[in-house]
Amino acid sequence: MDFLRKNKNICVFAALCLLGLIIACISPPQGVKPQAWHLFAIFFATIFGIILKPYPMSVISLFGLTAAVATNTLTFADAFSSFSNEVVWLVVFAFFVARGFIMTGLGSRMAYQVMHLLGKSTLGLGYGLVATDLILAPTIPSVTARAGGVIFPILKSLAEIFTGKSHDPRLGAFLTLAAFQGSAITSAMFLTSMAGNPLIAQLAKDHGVVLTWGGWAMASIVPGLLSLIVVPYAMYWFVSPTIRYTPHAKEMAKERLAQMGPMKKDEWIMLGVFILLLVLWIFGPRFELKATVAAMIGLAIMLLTGILKWKDALEETGAWDTFIWFSTLVTLASFLNKLGMTTWFSTWVVSNVTGLNWIVGFLFVALVYFYTHYFFASNVAHIGAMYAPLLIVSIALGAPPELAALTLAFFSNLFGGLTHYGSGPAPILFGAGYVSIGEWWKMGFIASLLNITIWVVIGGLWWKVLGLW
Amino acid sequence: MDFLRKNKNICVFAALCLLGLIIACISPPQGVKPQAWHLFAIFFATIFGIILKPYPMSVISLFGLTAAVATNTLTFADAFSSFSNEVVWLVVFAFFVARGFIMTGLGSRMAYQVMHLLGKSTLGLGYGLVATDLILAPTIPSVTARAGGVIFPILKSLAEIFTGKSHDPRLGAFLTLAAFQGSAITSAMFLTSMAGNPLIAQLAKDHGVVLTWGGWAMASIVPGLLSLIVVPYAMYWFVSPTIRYTPHAKEMAKERLAQMGPMKKDEWIMLGVFILLLVLWIFGPRFELKATVAAMIGLAIMLLTGILKWKDALEETGAWDTFIWFSTLVTLASFLNKLGMTTWFSTWVVSNVTGLNWIVGFLFVALVYFYTHYFFASNVAHIGAMYAPLLIVSIALGAPPELAALTLAFFSNLFGGLTHYGSGPAPILFGAGYVSIGEWWKMGFIASLLNITIWVVIGGLWWKVLGLW
Repeated sequence: MDFLRKNKNICVFAALCLLGLIIACISPPQGVKPQAWHLFAIFFATIFGIILKPYPMSVISLFGLTAAVATNTLTFADAFSSFSNEVVWLVVFAFFVARGFIMTGLGSRMAYQVMHLLGKSTLGLGYGLVATDLILAPTIPSVTARAGGVIFPILKSLAEIFTGKSHDPRLGAFLTLAAFQGSAITSAMFLTSMAGNPLIAQLAKDHGVVLTWGGWAMASIVPGLLSLIVVPYAMYWFVSPTIRYTPHAKEMAKERLAQMGPMKKDEWIMLGVFILLLVLWIFGPRFELKATVAAMIGLAIMLLTGILKWKDALEETGAWDTFIWFSTLVTLASFLNKLGMTTWFSTWVVSNVTGLNWIVGFLFVALVYFYTHYFFASNVAHIGAMYAPLLIVSIALGAPPELAALTLAFFSNLFGGLTHYGSGPAPILFGAGYVSIGEWWKMGFIASLLNITIWVVIGGLWWKVLGLW
Repeated sequence: MDFLRKNKNICVFAALCLLGLIIACISPPQGVKPQAWHLFAIFFATIFGIILKPYPMSVISLFGLTAAVATNTLTFADAFSSFSNEVVWLVVFAFFVARGFIMTGLGSRMAYQVMHLLGKSTLGLGYGLVATDLILAPTIPSVTARAGGVIFPILKSLAEIFTGKSHDPRLGAFLTLAAFQGSAITSAMFLTSMAGNPLIAQLAKDHGVVLTWGGWAMASIVPGLLSLIVVPYAMYWFVSPTIRYTPHAKEMAKERLAQMGPMKKDEWIMLGVFILLLVLWIFGPRFELKATVAAMIGLAIMLLTGILKWKDALEETGAWDTFIWFSTLVTLASFLNKLGMTTWFSTWVVSNVTGLNWIVGFLFVALVYFYTHYFFASNVAHIGAMYAPLLIVSIALGAPPELAALTLAFFSNLFGGLTHYGSGPAPILFGAGYVSIGEWWKMGFIASLLNITIWVVIGGLWWKVLGLW
């Protein structure tokens, strides 16, 4: 026992290795290639390890990757492929842009402005962040850019004001979770608010369902707004920040703004970069400029004008840490899919629902689609792997095509709120450091129950009104 | 003028952009695709910027990459591909392994052991490092692993002992350059001392020249040993460390070793990892275990046993810095090659040497091969691009096939000493921070002159004795 206590971490790690080994040694279900099954064993043990946390997340992830390469489950090139991934680099660049925001002082200034407007209550601040996200959602098609590049810096500055010494760290946790769950909801609301949504429209069209921008927005507006009201409030309730009412915040913010005086040169430059980023993120897609390249251009200007020094970027260890663990999980999850595990699973679901009443069958399909997101590190990857087969089976069951296509489309965004690696904004906001992994997952699960209820029940009624079924 | 002085860096940067633009606007030589020419303009301006250094190297490199992507010269996937590169990650992991060496104290202990043996003079220490490299060279086929994983930690510990306050930073510069130039020479000496050498043997075989392990070593032994004696001495002469004789070093080392007492637990673990790495690097190739995967396994053990904390790895900013600039240069250089710039250049060389006397023609070809390495960020890439066409033209000129194949083979390793990005060991040793870019390039050029003279003149005589021509 004494040995166990002293070497707790190694023992937990050994147990994880054993777990992976046992799964790997079970013979895979029919139709699953041994290679895919072994990768599943590694992925499962890695995720379990991330939750039990005997070592930092990046270390556990690197173990997983080492195991995958050393056992020849993945080739070196495959195992390291995600280090070149577009979303991964957008996440890294978002950390650097946020650092610039904060270092120039523009972050604090914007945070004080938000406080001045909405600072009466903690809840007001949370809703303020969500509202900002909603306003930008129709025009910025990268939810990672929106949540990471726009919301994150303001959130971090706000949280720092309130969570300094003798203040309230729970306020940071509430703001983070409200912004995160909010981003999953806003991205579900418009055809142009998440990178995977146009892919959904394409896949639906391939199977005879036309989803228009207007039709999508009309169907989402009622459940979407309701979710945006309910879910942040639920986060507030569960996280229960100590500071709830801040009657003096308005005056304090005004005072601080007065102390700060007029905008400094660095702040003006940062503001210019911020506006440029907004413009590029909004109009970039028209001339095929990726969100990551836009972020690179912004970052280049920041480095060139010296408002961000390279030394500061290098010392932003959160960026490098996230780079390692997030890339690794993206690799493991994407190869689970590429090796056919997901296709096998979709087939299995299909074989289990045929013959059911369409409402029961479709609900089952939709729930399976939602909760399998625990095994994905990207909305787009999950959509690419499962959207089409599940849409086909839903229509075959007798579900009205447009209803099925839209419900699965909304879930394709909402499931991004489940984990700290399931969508682009997740690793960035998680990286702010106010929420533990356990709480993140718990809140993610609670939000998923609320979202599913709202979108299925209230959404269902609204879609009846719209004549979708 | 005042504006220029105040904003010197921006002005230099603007001049670099202008330089790139001017090159890009010149119409490319016949046979060069516009895309390749534009990339050449970006690469040239980037390298020029790295030398003029208005901003840190990583910033300049990121500008280059941003320019390549924003102008659609490279696609995003191509531009970011090197972040998954095997050698790049071996470089990153070598930094972490070195950190573990130093933090456990094993690095200092080994350094004191070396001092105790060879510490009478600074020159002795330099030769000691080179000798260690030579002993390992026939068995560790990755020069990056050898120089980065074995020599670098000892070098860094040695340099730290002598370059602390009131000591001599020039000693660190000498040791770094001796080890670096030494690694280029040792890698030339055996068929199994650099990852690209077996590729050379394959390419030569494809063109009818069989290079055996014994034949290679026999041809290299005389010029190789001579270079290993002369080049480090030249570095010593030019760098001129202040501390030259250290009569008390032996005693000091003995005292310090006594003070350190017996090996601690962490040191034993580190020693175990070190031996494991040596074994994997030596025997790994037999069962297709890549040097990078071996390093990953070693790193995993270090993190698992806690002799390296993840926090320390994250704070090893040298690793992240090198990761960014080295990957970027690897990308730019490799696409210059993939887009056909190198093929065009080889054809141009061929068309200029036909009809010449073979000795003159072959010398010209070999020199061109050597100095074009300024445009490559990898020995293997350079070999893959130019070895075969230049070997063919040399044989066509009348050069004895084996002589031509071997000379080009030796140059394929020696040219790795030219720049701070030209071969795997370069970014690691450069990352130690004792040598400025200007000095690195100057010493690289001096060493190249010495190496070429030794290998062509003395080597030529020796190969005459061996009957190669």
